[in-house]
Amino acid sequence: MWIVPEREIASLMTREAAFVAVEKVFAAMATKDAYNFPVVREAIGHVDALYGFKGGFDRSGLTLGLKAGGYWPLNLQTKGIINHQSTVLLFDPDTGRAIALVGGNLLTALRTAAASSVSIAHLARKDAKVMGMIGAGHQAAYQLRAALEHREFEKVIGWNYHPDMLPNIEKVADEAGIPFEAVDLPGMREADVIISITSAFNASLMADHVSPGTHLACMGTDTKGKQEVQPELLAKATVFADEVAQSVSIGEAQHAVADGLIAENNISEIGSVINGTHPGRTSENEITLFDGTGVGLQDLAVAAAVVDLAVKQGVAIEVDF
Amino acid sequence: MWIVPEREIASLMTREAAFVAVEKVFAAMATKDAYNFPVVREAIGHVDALYGFKGGFDRSGLTLGLKAGGYWPLNLQTKGIINHQSTVLLFDPDTGRAIALVGGNLLTALRTAAASSVSIAHLARKDAKVMGMIGAGHQAAYQLRAALEHREFEKVIGWNYHPDMLPNIEKVADEAGIPFEAVDLPGMREADVIISITSAFNASLMADHVSPGTHLACMGTDTKGKQEVQPELLAKATVFADEVAQSVSIGEAQHAVADGLIAENNISEIGSVINGTHPGRTSENEITLFDGTGVGLQDLAVAAAVVDLAVKQGVAIEVDF
Repeated sequence: MWIVPEREIASLMTREAAFVAVEKVFAAMATKDAYNFPVVREAIGHVDALYGFKGGFDRSGLTLGLKAGGYWPLNLQTKGIINHQSTVLLFDPDTGRAIALVGGNLLTALRTAAASSVSIAHLARKDAKVMGMIGAGHQAAYQLRAALEHREFEKVIGWNYHPDMLPNIEKVADEAGIPFEAVDLPGMREADVIISITSAFNASLMADHVSPGTHLACMGTDTKGKQEVQPELLAKATVFADEVAQSVSIGEAQHAVADGLIAENNISEIGSVINGTHPGRTSENEITLFDGTGVGLQDLAVAAAVVDLAVKQGVAIEVDF
Repeated sequence: MWIVPEREIASLMTREAAFVAVEKVFAAMATKDAYNFPVVREAIGHVDALYGFKGGFDRSGLTLGLKAGGYWPLNLQTKGIINHQSTVLLFDPDTGRAIALVGGNLLTALRTAAASSVSIAHLARKDAKVMGMIGAGHQAAYQLRAALEHREFEKVIGWNYHPDMLPNIEKVADEAGIPFEAVDLPGMREADVIISITSAFNASLMADHVSPGTHLACMGTDTKGKQEVQPELLAKATVFADEVAQSVSIGEAQHAVADGLIAENNISEIGSVINGTHPGRTSENEITLFDGTGVGLQDLAVAAAVVDLAVKQGVAIEVDF
């Protein structure tokens, strides 16, 4: 089997390769060629850690396996290592044998950024000029960097609950040669595309902070109780998700559905837009909203891609397992 | 991290070490120091494979991880490799980092055999002389080999639906220098200890095939619908399980509970006998029955033990992951 250590991922995996892998597996989910297994997520009662598994099978790509790991909130302050720890294990679907073990930390950031990028590529207006960021943490930088590649953006605007973190995303805009401006939440009305990537439990972005024609990617809500935007915004928008079942249970749509503002069948899989079975955006004034909850198949897709690259480039470690 | 390939397990792991590891983790389960996560088990719709994950955390042993894998029914005939394929991945519970990847095929057989052995050691009469086997497949040989070490058995009797498989277990009795006799099911009345290890969906062993004072370990039923013994037998017996929740849902007790013959609170954890908080067998005529459903913590316990042995003996492969 092949081992691809965490330290090799940065030099192997590109945003483009992550985009291609995630777009493909979203499409396979929409045709039912790929599906995610039930998620196991446990508060293990030790150093406040959350641990679990996200598995899935993509019959079209023949990718089978799981991402295991979770969140160790004391890692950074007590051990100097990152709090999110992930490992991907891939199996040969023909035999059940383990075929690859892959460091999953950077891949998780890349696949999450790829998901919002896929939504921008397929749902944002072609003439989008202003990119808005709600959130400015570690993951926000990945999100912005990937997003900027998909439209000819001329300006980045950003808001964060703690404004002192805004330099994280300003730096990314600078690197892309695009001016950055800190705004308040109503200032988001200027944005053509908005990504929200926070860990909030209450809505920041209100429905009247979003102008007609905007595409919004809500990437932060992956747990019951978390919330980034006012539920009324989902009622005004055409809503898409990576996985509808997860969107209504632990995603941003949980609140709008609970409030009776939208129903599960008002949400479409982003994969159906990729496949062309859903038209996606149909007018310049439509608000489109992508609820990115994060599914195991994204992890498996980028991990499988990185194993191929690692083997080709001779950096995968072969172990006779 | 450490890699312990499947091929190394046979020379590293002893039945004794598996017994110790499984006994210890059953005890930890009874004190709530260890718990199993929800089991994921999926028919993936590809080569008839069943695939899934069994995870858990043992706070007392600081063992965290999962066994991934499943059943590929065409492996043997089409690829010449065994149908059950398992891999264990262990994590450092203090940081969430992967620390070991271990071949899980032989370990699964050893931990299952260890479970019935633990039940025999703690629940069978000390003067047990006749060992009865229901089932004579691959796993039955492991079960019998381990069981024979825990009492001074003078005879092995065996029954299998396909009698042509009986030589599998006769061979084990021969190696132990104990006479073997094929019997019909009523012939099991002679046994002091019975292990049933089949993949049947209907009861073979009836209540009146079991004599007073017998200890019975039902090891084959791990899925809804499977069944090895008449439910009335559980009503006559003092019933123990590795995990009560699993026993009543997918174990042998599912049928007796569904029929209203016993209730969930009539079943005790084997760990409470090991810990001494349950007296176990209290008379010579009592029938004791252990419902061994198989839990992820058993896999983690034997895998952690084998990693220690492999590192000490210099056969673990170290990978800078």
